[in-house]
Amino acid sequence: MTVREHTLSHTQTHTHTLYCMLHSSTSLLEGAMSAVKLEEFRERIRKELDTTVDFWLQHSHDPLHGGFFTCLGRDGEVYDELKYVWLQGRQVWMYCRLYRTMDRFHRPEILEAAKAGGAFLRKFTRVPGAGSGQWKCAFSLTRDGKAVKIQRTIFSECFYILAMDELSRVTGDKDMQLEAEQMMEQLISWVREDPAGLGRPQLPGDVPTNSMAVPMMLLCLVQQLTEGGGAEVVQKYTELASWCVQQILQHIQRGGTAILENVSVDGAELPGCQGRLQNPGHALEAGWFLLQVSAQQKDEALQRTAIDKFMELPYQNGWDKEHGGLFYFLDVDGHCPTQLEWNMKLWWPHCEALIAFLMAYSHTREPALLHRFSEVFEYTFKHFPDAQKGEWFGYLTQEGKVALDFKGGPFKGFFHVPRCLYMCERILDDMLANKD
Amino acid sequence: MTVREHTLSHTQTHTHTLYCMLHSSTSLLEGAMSAVKLEEFRERIRKELDTTVDFWLQHSHDPLHGGFFTCLGRDGEVYDELKYVWLQGRQVWMYCRLYRTMDRFHRPEILEAAKAGGAFLRKFTRVPGAGSGQWKCAFSLTRDGKAVKIQRTIFSECFYILAMDELSRVTGDKDMQLEAEQMMEQLISWVREDPAGLGRPQLPGDVPTNSMAVPMMLLCLVQQLTEGGGAEVVQKYTELASWCVQQILQHIQRGGTAILENVSVDGAELPGCQGRLQNPGHALEAGWFLLQVSAQQKDEALQRTAIDKFMELPYQNGWDKEHGGLFYFLDVDGHCPTQLEWNMKLWWPHCEALIAFLMAYSHTREPALLHRFSEVFEYTFKHFPDAQKGEWFGYLTQEGKVALDFKGGPFKGFFHVPRCLYMCERILDDMLANKD
Repeated sequence: MTVREHTLSHTQTHTHTLYCMLHSSTSLLEGAMSAVKLEEFRERIRKELDTTVDFWLQHSHDPLHGGFFTCLGRDGEVYDELKYVWLQGRQVWMYCRLYRTMDRFHRPEILEAAKAGGAFLRKFTRVPGAGSGQWKCAFSLTRDGKAVKIQRTIFSECFYILAMDELSRVTGDKDMQLEAEQMMEQLISWVREDPAGLGRPQLPGDVPTNSMAVPMMLLCLVQQLTEGGGAEVVQKYTELASWCVQQILQHIQRGGTAILENVSVDGAELPGCQGRLQNPGHALEAGWFLLQVSAQQKDEALQRTAIDKFMELPYQNGWDKEHGGLFYFLDVDGHCPTQLEWNMKLWWPHCEALIAFLMAYSHTREPALLHRFSEVFEYTFKHFPDAQKGEWFGYLTQEGKVALDFKGGPFKGFFHVPRCLYMCERILDDMLANKD
Repeated sequence: MTVREHTLSHTQTHTHTLYCMLHSSTSLLEGAMSAVKLEEFRERIRKELDTTVDFWLQHSHDPLHGGFFTCLGRDGEVYDELKYVWLQGRQVWMYCRLYRTMDRFHRPEILEAAKAGGAFLRKFTRVPGAGSGQWKCAFSLTRDGKAVKIQRTIFSECFYILAMDELSRVTGDKDMQLEAEQMMEQLISWVREDPAGLGRPQLPGDVPTNSMAVPMMLLCLVQQLTEGGGAEVVQKYTELASWCVQQILQHIQRGGTAILENVSVDGAELPGCQGRLQNPGHALEAGWFLLQVSAQQKDEALQRTAIDKFMELPYQNGWDKEHGGLFYFLDVDGHCPTQLEWNMKLWWPHCEALIAFLMAYSHTREPALLHRFSEVFEYTFKHFPDAQKGEWFGYLTQEGKVALDFKGGPFKGFFHVPRCLYMCERILDDMLANKD
């Protein structure tokens, strides 16, 4: 080493030391600042969760037949008595989860409403399916439980399973858990073996498709059924969980630059609008599902993929640079989507984005992820909550004006808003408890 | 009669005479003015029809497989190759109707395209249905004709019949006409006897409903099948036509103050959102269907009902007083509809309104109806036509901004725009020919 090199090296070392000192104090300062910020987020989120729970406790219960009204106007008034099964199952699940895991919601009225919802579901939602000896769950029921419509998809069944499993954890009812597992077996068979029981005619032009929603929902159910379970139950679903993860990862397309909503069963891009469709909210939701798996399996590569591909890409491709907020649908080649609502801002993609970025930040402590969370938080809390009447509006125009002013409808129930607030509060609790 | 009474009577008579003289010259003036105005409308409409026909002739034909691409972007580029059967049938019908009845469209290329579309439909669209020995028409096909999706409704079949009947009138192909009539028989049986062949499971909460679209479409088909026909064919469909009219009239609800889209089979209001739904564009379309029947049957009461109930009410209830244009959906009690696109302005309700008000004016010569037509014309021609690239945008925001910029999609083909322009041009031709 020459004198010059030595001097240079010494200077570099010295500079490096200074940098580390500075960086360390900056980090400390940043840490203190972010703790204050996280506390502010938690306060706002906690209040919003309380308001939301109160709104549904007050307006959605049907004392006559059990189950829940979900078509609730701005003030909470019931504008339609149809009972949508996705939303019945989701509300039972959410009530039970709050009751089981958060002290301030461990209240008899919440448990009783969940039980009444569960009883309504068990009594009325299962109807004979197209497959021999198989059951389907209806999509919608009359107030007194008569089936109105059946979808030829798996989603009513998914939310039925979610409800039954979580309710059985609260009540200890083993029959209920068994029912959830039996329905799960049937679901797996429809998805992985033979879809005939769903009732769709087999058509030569209707090629099998890997739609994001299917492996996502199955993965969500695996997480539910194995939560806190022993080695046996985890083992039972290990292969399915891996399959779901692989199916979800197939949606990374265009050389890793986009998440596409529908791909072929071999993971290739499909032709036309269906193949080019992007659904940023769905991708973000898949992102935090994958992140949970990555944490359980201590899989750093999966963590990176979840964040870079399923969070950063949908944000980059899906955030409206002009008006803020996430688009509902986009075409990866920039064509106009054919969905009339493509440019609307819906509440649920923003809920998923909040969970995704906060969870990603809590797992990595990368400041950029907290920044993303803050940005989504600011848009969301400025536009969706109804300060006057409580709960959130669900559907805004591209410019952020309320386009549909009800609080609940055929697809908006007691689920995305409280799940988001619940998940975020829990993540913030953990971060603030471990902040040193 | 006292002197005072006589004087008064004389004065009244005198005043009345003066009034009549004034009114007569005003009418003459108005007549001359309106002829100028009608000529202006016709010129604009004629040009727009030419542009629209050119756009579809240039961009929508598939020289390889026959049939039509309907997913055409703003410039006419094909952004999806799926072939939607409603739109295949409608384009065949429209081409043939233009070819058959308007000299300037009696061109070989139009006939050839219609024949190729008809051949594609006959070859590929019929697939085995749920009922024994019954056929269904697919909803969508791949470019080369493989069935992708079947709807459990009657509408693909309706447009198949429309296409086959009109094409047979041009080609003289009797087999084709027979096929149209056979499909019509099956359709009538599904609607009036047994819907099982449509493939929907019978569910206890799914009560039979009179949806406006069904009697409207059947009436439209009766008009098609009997057009220019002899006494025998008219006789064959007389009872069905009366039934359709009665079914449509059942949608007049709320003491005659609203047209509701769905009613019970007994003509009573249905509960919930479904029962309260208004679809102003549909009501207006039904209006001009009824007006045609009233003219054929010289039924003045039906004419009055068509205008007062099926045109004036949807206009009063459905026109956006703030931004202009017709809403897509409304709730008769003022609740927010649950359809995300409820407040959008779609091209086709405006097409139906133009036909309805112009036809009503031509039948009655009531100036108020010409005024309505003018108002709808002004909004429509200001917002929907694409002056740069031709054809019309289909989907605007409530404020009138283009929300989806394609010219054709899964539900927008070569139908509502050219049918409207064609009908209006014909009505204006007749009025201007008889203007003295």
